[in-house]
Order: sequence, then C-alpha cells, then structure tokens
Amino acid sequence: MSGRTLDEAQIIAVIREMASGPHPGLEIPIGDDAAQFHFSGGDVLLTTDSMYEGVHFDLHACGLSDVGWKCAAAAVSDIAAMGGQPTCALLSLAFGEAPTGARVRTLASGLLEMLSSCHCALIGGDVCRSPGGLCLTVTVAGTPPLSGAVRRTGARPGDLVGITGTVGDSAAGLFILQKAEEELRAEYPALVEAHLRPRPRVLAGEVLAGSGVSAMEDVSDGVAADLLHICAESGLGCEIERDLIPLSNQAVELASRFGVDPVDWALSGGEDYELIFTAAFDRFAEAERALAGHGICAFRLGEMTDPGRGFWLLAGGGRTELGGIGFDHFKGGAV
Amino acid sequence: MSGRTLDEAQIIAVIREMASGPHPGLEIPIGDDAAQFHFSGGDVLLTTDSMYEGVHFDLHACGLSDVGWKCAAAAVSDIAAMGGQPTCALLSLAFGEAPTGARVRTLASGLLEMLSSCHCALIGGDVCRSPGGLCLTVTVAGTPPLSGAVRRTGARPGDLVGITGTVGDSAAGLFILQKAEEELRAEYPALVEAHLRPRPRVLAGEVLAGSGVSAMEDVSDGVAADLLHICAESGLGCEIERDLIPLSNQAVELASRFGVDPVDWALSGGEDYELIFTAAFDRFAEAERALAGHGICAFRLGEMTDPGRGFWLLAGGGRTELGGIGFDHFKGGAV
Repeated sequence: MSGRTLDEAQIIAVIREMASGPHPGLEIPIGDDAAQFHFSGGDVLLTTDSMYEGVHFDLHACGLSDVGWKCAAAAVSDIAAMGGQPTCALLSLAFGEAPTGARVRTLASGLLEMLSSCHCALIGGDVCRSPGGLCLTVTVAGTPPLSGAVRRTGARPGDLVGITGTVGDSAAGLFILQKAEEELRAEYPALVEAHLRPRPRVLAGEVLAGSGVSAMEDVSDGVAADLLHICAESGLGCEIERDLIPLSNQAVELASRFGVDPVDWALSGGEDYELIFTAAFDRFAEAERALAGHGICAFRLGEMTDPGRGFWLLAGGGRTELGGIGFDHFKGGAV
Repeated sequence: MSGRTLDEAQIIAVIREMASGPHPGLEIPIGDDAAQFHFSGGDVLLTTDSMYEGVHFDLHACGLSDVGWKCAAAAVSDIAAMGGQPTCALLSLAFGEAPTGARVRTLASGLLEMLSSCHCALIGGDVCRSPGGLCLTVTVAGTPPLSGAVRRTGARPGDLVGITGTVGDSAAGLFILQKAEEELRAEYPALVEAHLRPRPRVLAGEVLAGSGVSAMEDVSDGVAADLLHICAESGLGCEIERDLIPLSNQAVELASRFGVDPVDWALSGGEDYELIFTAAFDRFAEAERALAGHGICAFRLGEMTDPGRGFWLLAGGGRTELGGIGFDHFKGGAV
C-alpha cells in the first residue's frame, strides 16, 4: 500500500474487503444504509464504547492495530459481562486527516483480529473526519445466555464477591508504556500485552452465567468503581479484603521496583476486562469449579452486605472507603 | 438545574432518568454492561452515525438540542432507507469538558424528542471525555419490513429513479445559519428547520418497501453521491434530469436572492434525509399512489441505465458527469 491518502469511499472499501467472509446470521453486510443480522431467539444484547486519541490512547505508546483491538475488546467485554456471546459489530471511525491505506489496514487488522477471536463479524459502520485525532466507537450486539443475561442488579446480602484472573496488569502495562523505556517493555511483555491486547472473558462469562452467579460486571474502570456499580444497582453495601485482590507476579515485581503499590493499579487502573461477580456461597464454589474446568482461575474478594453498611476495603484490621477510587472521565482517575 | 458540572456517573444518571419509561421489547435498560432488547422475528437492522463539533455542527449556529436531534435523525434515517422501523438506540457521548446538568438535559431532550417521534427507545450507551469538543455516536437498531429490507443492490436497467419531498432545503438552511443574520433566519423558518430538525422518512420508507421498489437510500450526502451509491451497489449507470429535481419555493427564492444555484444544494448539500429510490415503471406509479395516500409527494428524477453507460445529469440538451459531486469527508464537498 502506498503513502497515498484515501477518501471516505476508499476507506470504507478497504475495511469492507477486509471484513468480508461468510458469517452465520449475517443477512446484509457492509455496503448498505444499515446491516441486517438474524438473531435466533430474538433477544439481543447491545453495547457501545468509544475511544479518543489523547484521552484513551496515545499513538506514541501504542500501535494503530492495538487501538483497533482495544476498542473492540472493550465492547466485547460488556457482552461477556452479561454472560453473552458477541455476534456482530459496527465501527464508527473518524480520522483528523485523510489516512493512508496502510494506516486504515493496520487499524482494521487489530480490530478484526479481536472480533474474529470471538467469532464476531464486523457488519457495518460509519467513516468521517474528526476535529482532533483518531476516534473509534465500536458497537457490539450479542446473544444472552440460555439462563438469561446476568445483570448488575441481582446481588443479595451475604453473596460472596469474586473475580477472574489477576487485576492491575493493564495499569502496570500503561505504567511501563508511559516510562517509554524499550528495555523495561521487553522485561514485562505480559503486562504490556495486558494493556494493549486485553482479552475479554467471553468463555468465563458464559461459564459464570451457567453457574448461576447473581450479578456480574467487567473490570473496565477498576475493581473499586466496578464493584460499586454492582452495589448501586443491587442496592447493597460491600466489604472486600485488600490481601485477597489477585495480583500477577510481574505486576508485584514491577511495583516493588518503582516503589508503588500494585493494589492501587488493581483498584483504580481499570481496563483489565476481568469479570467481577457475586454468588451465594454454594454457587460460588460451583462457579470456581466450573471455571477451573476451563483452566480459568477465580478468587474470592469479600462479600456483599446489607444496604447502608457502606463500601469498604479491609486491610490490617482497619478499613478504607471504596468510594472515590477508580476512573471517572470528568473527575480523573488515580492512574 | 444549577451551573455545577457533572461527573460521568451523574451524566449517565440524568440521561437514564430522562430515557426511562416502558418500551415494548426492552428487557434490560440503561444501567448495565449491555442493554437487552427483544426483536420478534429475530431479524435486526443495525446502523451507526457519528457527529463531531467543528465538523458536522457548529454550536454558534445550532443549539445543543438540535445536535441531539440531528445525530439521532441521521441514524434513524438509515433504518428508514431500508424500509424498516427503528426500535431502540444507543448513545455514545463525549464532552471536551465536564458539562453542566442543563447542557446534558438540553442535548438529551433533542435526541429523545427525535427518537420518541418514531417510537424508538434509548436503551444504553457510553459517556466519556473527548480531546476536542462535543462528539456523539448514535447507533439505532430496527426491524426490517415484512417484504424484506430494501437494499442498494436491487436496481435494474430501465428502473425509474424517484425521490420523496424536496431536496436542498437542509443546505439552504445551513447557508442561512452561516450568514448568521437573525432576520434572514426568521424569513425562512422552514429551511432552518430542515437543517436543524430533519425528519427521517420512516413512514415513506415503509410504504415504498411495501410497494416493491427495487433499491432505496436516504439523501445524506446529496442526491448525486447517494444515487451513485445505488449505481455502484447495483452495478448500473444512471441519467437524471436537472429540471426534475424537486426544490421548495423557499429554497428557490433564497437562492435567487443570493445569486446561487439551488440545484447545487440538492445535488451536493446532503442531510435532507429524503428517500431516493428506484422502481420498475408500474411499481413506480404504484409507489407514487401509495405515498400520496399518506400525503407524501414523490417525483421522478430519471432512470437507471445499463452498466458502463455512465452517471449523467441531463440539462438543456447537454449533460454533466454526476461523479465528483457530493460530500466526502476527506475530499470536501461543494457546500
């Protein structure tokens, strides 16, 4: 591909060619006013996520294909957090200036690689100019699990709070990218990968939904903020233990080297796209076993409490308020 | 509402409250990772449209509620252009700085007014910060007509080309807003309204689909560019007559006053959201009659020709190439 820039129609043509291919359910693909997809059963999960250059990503620190991957992953993760299967996606894409074909291809390749990894088809979208840099909005539609989508509203007092995988790795990866030292990046590839190429927990979401968990959400804003969403929607309090938050060895090692606290990355970093969930005691054990059968670890963080009991992080006999920790676009976050 | 600014959670709370209400089909509303909607039949039309401050609108010339309306209208119009019924929408919203509650309410009121006018529910979305000004992406899902969605691909040689309503009014309205003269604005309220509050042709789309038209598209980029999309997707040429392009008296009068050609507004202005369609001779007459039964006018512009015959605007015995007329984000348009 040459360095010649593309116009709107050519950008669409490049993406359309890359996205083509048979997809079960796809009835009208890219190229019309709207796409048409068949959802057997008729129940459809819908979610949308935007990412803006200079707010969500910095093209000095990550590649265009990573940006495409990340934005798709954020939307896919919302479907995973309901226990659903992503099936098709729309991309609204804006460039500050006419891009070259190579730029369009690189961006689309990351996005399509992410979507393909979970059998999700790119079926439509929109291309335009932005006043600033690169902007992406990815909308994903999916199907709920047979047992019904797992909402944020279903937690009950006494339910255990659990989480899949380890958290804080994405924030640790961002910390490395912001240092901009090639050597450091090479030393912690898994952390950098966790930030640039997060893998939404589609299978774990399905397994957790099937295990009868009571509430679920993905970790996009940090463990603190995301658990508080479940508390708010279920009308409950919570208590989690600082020492139970699962951290990777790489994150712990990096944090100790730089004298920072890796738990802060977990609580307020966000973009881990692990699943935080609540379940009654016996269901929790069942969920752990079911996840283990797929090689996925899950950990107990604490429990849900009665309404009005507050939102607490317990540590060393003391406790800290969870409110106010975590990323908010108009308050700023801790990372 | 005071001038105090809102954080992300508060912005979502304001919109959630405004959007609440029972909607048939809505199973999981705003407040979860994803929304859930039931589409009886299982076939879903999906489309997305973005608008950026400084590219698609200028807040000196139009109000926040107009911006909300326009972005919703653009996406709804894509569903109308397939002959479908819009049913639910997602909003991805980004502000350059924390907005006041009043700003959020004004923007959402325009958007919700547009959606309500066609029984379309706002069921989810995303709020974040943008590096520049206001950015909106509206995704609309809908159901295809019983006779099947009308695509751009179905035109046949000899089919007549028709259009609903009048075209060029939106560009004329933009011309007035750019002059920024209060008096001029008061003299041509219908043109200003056509630009700020376009009304997607949902009913006309349904009627045209039921009449068996062969291809259809909404006029978003201008009659020239949008007809060329049908030609490209159907693999045909076209010939339309300049004198047959339907213009409103107000647009003609305004154009004559300022010495500009109103047909240019129609061909390349865009954002009229009228429907351009093709139909075999007898179907065309049937479509005209069916639309008339609902008080909607339609006009013949010309006809589709064999592949390789080119794309022509006929006028005064001569002809002009239609290609190159119309708006492209990375080429610029004629308005």
